Amino acid sequence: MADLVVSLKDRIPAERVVTDPGVTAAYARDEAPWAPYGTPAALVRAQSVEDVRAVVELCAEHGVPVVPRGAGTGLSGGANALEGCVLLSLERMNEIIEIDPVERLAVVQPGVVNDDLRKACAEHGLWYPPDPSSSPWSTIGGNVATNAGGLCCVKYGVTRDYVLAVQAVVGRGEVVRLGHRTAKGVTGYDLCGLMVGSEGTLGVVTEVTVRLRSARAAERTIVGSFPDLQTAGKAVGAVTAAGIVPSALELVDRHVLRAVDEWRNMGLSDDAEVLLLGRTDLPGEAGEAEADAMVRLFEEAGANWAVRSTDEEEADALFEARRLAYPAMERLGPVLTDDVCVPRALLPEMLTRVEAAAVENDVHIANVAHAGDGNLHPMIIVPADDEAARVRAVRAFDQIIAGALDLGGTVTGEHGVGLLKRRGLHDELDPAVVALHHAVKAALDPAGIFNPGKVFGDPS
Amino acid sequence: MADLVVSLKDRIPAERVVTDPGVTAAYARDEAPWAPYGTPAALVRAQSVEDVRAVVELCAEHGVPVVPRGAGTGLSGGANALEGCVLLSLERMNEIIEIDPVERLAVVQPGVVNDDLRKACAEHGLWYPPDPSSSPWSTIGGNVATNAGGLCCVKYGVTRDYVLAVQAVVGRGEVVRLGHRTAKGVTGYDLCGLMVGSEGTLGVVTEVTVRLRSARAAERTIVGSFPDLQTAGKAVGAVTAAGIVPSALELVDRHVLRAVDEWRNMGLSDDAEVLLLGRTDLPGEAGEAEADAMVRLFEEAGANWAVRSTDEEEADALFEARRLAYPAMERLGPVLTDDVCVPRALLPEMLTRVEAAAVENDVHIANVAHAGDGNLHPMIIVPADDEAARVRAVRAFDQIIAGALDLGGTVTGEHGVGLLKRRGLHDELDPAVVALHHAVKAALDPAGIFNPGKVFGDPS
Repeated sequence: MADLVVSLKDRIPAERVVTDPGVTAAYARDEAPWAPYGTPAALVRAQSVEDVRAVVELCAEHGVPVVPRGAGTGLSGGANALEGCVLLSLERMNEIIEIDPVERLAVVQPGVVNDDLRKACAEHGLWYPPDPSSSPWSTIGGNVATNAGGLCCVKYGVTRDYVLAVQAVVGRGEVVRLGHRTAKGVTGYDLCGLMVGSEGTLGVVTEVTVRLRSARAAERTIVGSFPDLQTAGKAVGAVTAAGIVPSALELVDRHVLRAVDEWRNMGLSDDAEVLLLGRTDLPGEAGEAEADAMVRLFEEAGANWAVRSTDEEEADALFEARRLAYPAMERLGPVLTDDVCVPRALLPEMLTRVEAAAVENDVHIANVAHAGDGNLHPMIIVPADDEAARVRAVRAFDQIIAGALDLGGTVTGEHGVGLLKRRGLHDELDPAVVALHHAVKAALDPAGIFNPGKVFGDPS
Repeated sequence: MADLVVSLKDRIPAERVVTDPGVTAAYARDEAPWAPYGTPAALVRAQSVEDVRAVVELCAEHGVPVVPRGAGTGLSGGANALEGCVLLSLERMNEIIEIDPVERLAVVQPGVVNDDLRKACAEHGLWYPPDPSSSPWSTIGGNVATNAGGLCCVKYGVTRDYVLAVQAVVGRGEVVRLGHRTAKGVTGYDLCGLMVGSEGTLGVVTEVTVRLRSARAAERTIVGSFPDLQTAGKAVGAVTAAGIVPSALELVDRHVLRAVDEWRNMGLSDDAEVLLLGRTDLPGEAGEAEADAMVRLFEEAGANWAVRSTDEEEADALFEARRLAYPAMERLGPVLTDDVCVPRALLPEMLTRVEAAAVENDVHIANVAHAGDGNLHPMIIVPADDEAARVRAVRAFDQIIAGALDLGGTVTGEHGVGLLKRRGLHDELDPAVVALHHAVKAALDPAGIFNPGKVFGDPS
């Protein structure tokens, strides 16, 4: 291992190769406090594709794992250090290389923060839709690694839908370009799409070309207050069944609202058990009609009240609260965040099962959901240092996963498998499909160095 | 080989296993008359996943290639028979298994014709967008194999954007489900997306789950007549630069209009050199504004005239003519169809290069283009049985491909590589990327039986 570090320092300026345990420890894990992590041999703060290539070449030579990471905001342990690995931070590769308004694309380095890209696009009248709640902090590279979703997915799709091309360091250090810059292209396999969502197990993405949209009309916000989760779930079903595709449709429960309010003092808490936050970005009269229809559907489904927000600041505050759900809950103790996605129509049933898991295991579960997608994020919170509660939380987590699979859903809608959902992956996928994963991994990572053991590794 | 046929007839009812050369010959090629093809050992008309499994198991055992095919409307030779192969026709697996209006998805067998699916969806107020010009004949399985595009791609994306999941027979006969039924899902690699566009080289798709959209507002049509290709190309650039995303933006030249008219007597031909056919499906006032803007931009770019079509039948006839371009030209002689895609802003330059290739090689080239995508389909036509002209046509074809690559484009926007574009693939992709293709192919097709040699095989 000392050999490897010496070789790294031979090829990469020394200040970018960090072995001080005080520093590397801070990089050893993402935001999944329940996932295990090891002690890295070194942290490399790459500043160029050449740095990345040096790391991959040397790690392949020495048989040492490479764990790439962006901002470390992942929620599944995908970026957690493996024992003796090289942590490869892409944070410093944060240049927006190009924004092309005519082709409607941007070329960025992986360390660019999502919101920074969105702001830069806005200056050109363009829009990069994928908006995970972590957008103020998470990087495009991390978003690509997990195929991140967000609030606008319900209408505009996920990260993979916007990745036209990547540059990546693969294999034993080959630098390749995958995908295309044109609007369409079918020359060969979709290896670009395969890299997206592969959680660092197939190579290291060093540049991303993303598709952009034209900036859209201002959104209208609809807020509904519901007496319970099921009623809110039914309202979501009613919106979907009416053929409406809102530009956002989020569920937030009172636990989350209260936690955010206690932290940020936003004056949010009221007597609502559950809020649904809907948005439409249809222009003109069509937007008016869609907003009115959502208010009516909320009311008919049993809302205590439903209104179109006339105060833009208030509307933004509600969505800000939604985005802050995770860090706000984290202040209250270790959070075990789930990320199941079920068929939209089964959202009320899934919410019932989440509540049942909370009761049965005597744990506290706060709920946010990308409700329009059927994508739930139950957050299980237990007191710190209470081992018995921890065991109960894991049981609730597993029951929620099992419930989602039982309803024809998936164990992870957008957070990725990382370490936390590996068992779930094996429950969800047929062994023949897992075998295909191993075959692809072996084919594209012959040295076995890219984030080995993550995603479909043996969870036992 | 006789052994294999006997074994096939053991497991599959005899009437589905055809060895009569008079019948199999009709299945031995797709609509790329310039691509080579061999003599199949047998044609199997599969009626179930069990039939497909039997073919794959037996071909793996005997080391015989399997060439899957749908309606045979491909334009690159991807479905052409390999010498001694088993042609596996999926045409009879043409059931629409399910349409779910709440989840907005459909589950279909691969032999379902694209337009049939679209009609069935329309009855539920739903819409399956991908609309290759072959939609009256081509099958969803074929569309998946080539990641087919179409007219609406410019706004709504391509086939891969709509494939949520597939069932496929892979390897040595394993039946697997890839993808998910939920709106989102990131459990493992995107093997579903990898299957899409793999042109039958990674397995045989036996069921497809597609995402649907709600039916949309009626479209408005804008027609512009231009004095030459470049001026039309500039008008397309102006529309794009204005941030407009039309629901279709097609280019058709007078050669095509005349050929369609001679065939179908649709009363289309006039004095236009080049027509641009634009559409917008924005609702209400926004649609009015977008249609008006397109008329103005066409005029400002130098149109002879530009109008909003007030006659729906006339508008439909023009789009019908666009769709019939290929079969209409085919009546005039063997057609060598190109399919390059360039950055949108370079469309005028690419059109210039197409014209130059026609002049330099003394061949006739008719043009249609998904202009809004920068996706051109120059159709090179030469007299039958004129070997010298044939050589010149191939030279023009190669020059067009080289031109597209020179402009940062791709050798195939939507037709696939098949046999015709294999050399182009090797020109476009770095050897390291081709090596990744070989690695993936070897990993997922250990018996080497799925359409071997197509796409990235040695073209020499």
